[in-house]
Amino acid sequence: MSLTPYQQLEDRFRRLLSLRDAEAMLHWDMATMMPAGGARSRGDQLATLKAVQHGILTEPETEFLLQAALDNDVDDGPEAANLREMQRMWGRATALSEDLVVALAKSRSACETIWRKARAEDDFALVLPHLEKFLSLLRQAAGATAEKLDLSPYDALLDEYEPGGRTREIDRLFGELQSFLPGYLSRALERQSGGPPALKPKGPFAAGKQRALGVRLMKILGFDFEHGRLDESLHPFCGGTPDDIRITTRYDGDDFTQALMAVLHETGHALYDRGLPKAWRGQPAGEARSMGVHESQSLLIEMQVCRSPEFLAYAAPLMAAAFDGAGPAWETENLLRLYTWVEPGLIRVEADEITYPAHVVLRYNLEKAMLAGDLEAADLPAAWNEEMRRFLGLTPANDRLGCLQDIHWFDGAWGYFPTYTLGAIMAAQLFEAAQNAVPGIWRAISKGDFAPLLSWLRENVHSQGSLLTSRELLIRATGRPLDTEAYKRHLQRRYLS
Amino acid sequence: MSLTPYQQLEDRFRRLLSLRDAEAMLHWDMATMMPAGGARSRGDQLATLKAVQHGILTEPETEFLLQAALDNDVDDGPEAANLREMQRMWGRATALSEDLVVALAKSRSACETIWRKARAEDDFALVLPHLEKFLSLLRQAAGATAEKLDLSPYDALLDEYEPGGRTREIDRLFGELQSFLPGYLSRALERQSGGPPALKPKGPFAAGKQRALGVRLMKILGFDFEHGRLDESLHPFCGGTPDDIRITTRYDGDDFTQALMAVLHETGHALYDRGLPKAWRGQPAGEARSMGVHESQSLLIEMQVCRSPEFLAYAAPLMAAAFDGAGPAWETENLLRLYTWVEPGLIRVEADEITYPAHVVLRYNLEKAMLAGDLEAADLPAAWNEEMRRFLGLTPANDRLGCLQDIHWFDGAWGYFPTYTLGAIMAAQLFEAAQNAVPGIWRAISKGDFAPLLSWLRENVHSQGSLLTSRELLIRATGRPLDTEAYKRHLQRRYLS
Repeated sequence: MSLTPYQQLEDRFRRLLSLRDAEAMLHWDMATMMPAGGARSRGDQLATLKAVQHGILTEPETEFLLQAALDNDVDDGPEAANLREMQRMWGRATALSEDLVVALAKSRSACETIWRKARAEDDFALVLPHLEKFLSLLRQAAGATAEKLDLSPYDALLDEYEPGGRTREIDRLFGELQSFLPGYLSRALERQSGGPPALKPKGPFAAGKQRALGVRLMKILGFDFEHGRLDESLHPFCGGTPDDIRITTRYDGDDFTQALMAVLHETGHALYDRGLPKAWRGQPAGEARSMGVHESQSLLIEMQVCRSPEFLAYAAPLMAAAFDGAGPAWETENLLRLYTWVEPGLIRVEADEITYPAHVVLRYNLEKAMLAGDLEAADLPAAWNEEMRRFLGLTPANDRLGCLQDIHWFDGAWGYFPTYTLGAIMAAQLFEAAQNAVPGIWRAISKGDFAPLLSWLRENVHSQGSLLTSRELLIRATGRPLDTEAYKRHLQRRYLS
Repeated sequence: MSLTPYQQLEDRFRRLLSLRDAEAMLHWDMATMMPAGGARSRGDQLATLKAVQHGILTEPETEFLLQAALDNDVDDGPEAANLREMQRMWGRATALSEDLVVALAKSRSACETIWRKARAEDDFALVLPHLEKFLSLLRQAAGATAEKLDLSPYDALLDEYEPGGRTREIDRLFGELQSFLPGYLSRALERQSGGPPALKPKGPFAAGKQRALGVRLMKILGFDFEHGRLDESLHPFCGGTPDDIRITTRYDGDDFTQALMAVLHETGHALYDRGLPKAWRGQPAGEARSMGVHESQSLLIEMQVCRSPEFLAYAAPLMAAAFDGAGPAWETENLLRLYTWVEPGLIRVEADEITYPAHVVLRYNLEKAMLAGDLEAADLPAAWNEEMRRFLGLTPANDRLGCLQDIHWFDGAWGYFPTYTLGAIMAAQLFEAAQNAVPGIWRAISKGDFAPLLSWLRENVHSQGSLLTSRELLIRATGRPLDTEAYKRHLQRRYLS
């Protein structure tokens, strides 16, 4: 009995995504376990896996099967969604020649390696030629993808991370944010200055104890250690695969609060991955919807839930018990102040909820200008500093605290930054809908019971995988497309009232 | 400028071996890090990587390039050796249909899973149908490979692990062993009974301290932690790749001696991998020669060197210091007795140097008989027990202590067992040659200086990769093909004089 074209495609994409799973595990190992001397051979392994995947997508047989499945096989239902995602992957892969794919990968890898040195030595000139070379290849790739997908070059990049994401929509949302955030910031700072300062619990905090507390809260949130691990890496992340999720954090002996919140943030990502539809494992429709939706799940857990008074009332005693802490710094009120402290700063990853979008909008504007050729890479430091003054009234003392701070541009992730703020806005809208749908949700959270929340997220977000578009998912879960209303209400409630 | 057929083959095999490296890392992760729930998706990843490799080897283009390179390109030198190894891999891969490869992989995986349960519950009948099914597929595969390579079916299997290895040669070597080992055993036991018993140092021994001691001795032996790690797994092994070597051990809180010796054994494997020729990385000629040669390197370090009075005189004070040990159990003489204690037993992995070959010969005879159809899988337990009585005078109380003890047959490794004893014989012959070539070698070892030994091994074994055949390698390094003379002299010196 012969397989239909659609069934043959399922086999083909199962193989493809299995190779991507292998790649994900090797990335995790590189960040957590690999000795430095393994870097070069690991680079070869990852490049080969990429090339094999590109080869599977660009084989003429893949195009033939896609066309045949579209013509005959599949009209509707989840198979149609799966086929749509297959086409998406195929379209992006075939837009680029293998030569360009390889040139991009090599240029990105060289640029990222030099960036580490340039950042450490605060020497933008060192990385500039590599950034220029990468940018020129990226413009080619964005142009080719744009032509193939009938998008603008920036949207062609954005679409990789945020399928269906468009500049027009982001400009609208970011415009809304810019209309109210500066006012919110002034009011929040004023309100904050009327209260006591936030006290930092005094260490030292042994890594083993920090880890044990993290694991305890991960379990409470619903992380399944039969299908995942917690390890350490330079930058926290969530990697691996839906059945074997690897999250990481980094422990600071003087401050447990950051590593712990990173664990909770990554647990949000992990819950999403774990909840992806089992029936669609190994198929494009079973994958996470977008980076924006992914970030919405981590920020929903971190920002909406874990920095709330309700959660902290539950968690503060656990924190104190974990480190034998006592005194005013360990009281719920103080930990809440600490975890919701607002202060404009130079570093994105340390930013609070109100100023974080400014960091993103700044990068979004600059990367669009660079891609379009309106801003040359050589002029980036000056432009960065000017925008930083305009947005947050601060001037970086050096490029380390400025345009060299993030890995993204140097590692090839262009069109990625907006997804952080899309995620923040989505998190607020989704969590508001969850609160409306599940009346006892806060009471449960305040007792350390995450089942009602998780159950709502499983049904409305996680189990949808990529079966719906982001827009469909939002409308189905919240009754409307993405807007900033819930986000505004959240900030008002938390910081202004 | 177009590439020659040979150069195209180098590209093709670089890609192939890079996928095999990826596979090796994922195997390591599976044994050391992976949560139980990751097993199924990991199985998919590994199967896909295997299928992609099989696909690269069996593409018509590979055969075409091999033929073109043989006809025109490459006559002599290391490229000819590389081409020979390419042909070898191609020949083995193309002997089997993809259907048979997949059926074997699935059957092996099922059989191994059930074996774990069968062993735990001492229930041979549970695994028997799976073993029978696997054996029937294996006979097909061995037959097809035998026909393609013009070998007997058993040699076709053996040749995978020991390229060029032949039953005829193994029968000769094992025959020699059987002519003198029983006599050696009686004399060693008699001599041993005239001395004091071996005392076991008293624990508990914290895993952290055991690990620190292992790391210390690994560094002394020459293990490069820039290119490797030490971790824990159920069974010790050496995995990873030459630039990123992962060795493992398992700590017993009541007995540090076993885990430590396992670390030293695996370090022997690791030194070999690390010393493989850098100029041939990613090419078949740059790979380890065979499982026999690999085992010779671990046994040379473990059996020849680390269980010697010279090494233990150096290491005993380090062991005592690591655990604050004092008293007769910690004296060099006692640790030497403990590490060279002779006692016939039922379990292969616990066997001493004199009785170990009996465990191997028993398995070799049985697996040959089963492959040939002279022994049915159902009759294995009885045959095992009979042979065990004949070889070592012992009767297993159950199959857990008998034919269920080893994973190999249930995990598909048929034709593998002989390489343990080939390795032991090779280790003696190579180390004798090293002693003759480097006069101060023992004095250096007794001071913890492994540089003279390592330098000889690097030049004569490690850096040869697969550029020579095993036979050529032995003759070049020791002046003659493999025989049991050096092994006999080693046993006589250590156990009988």
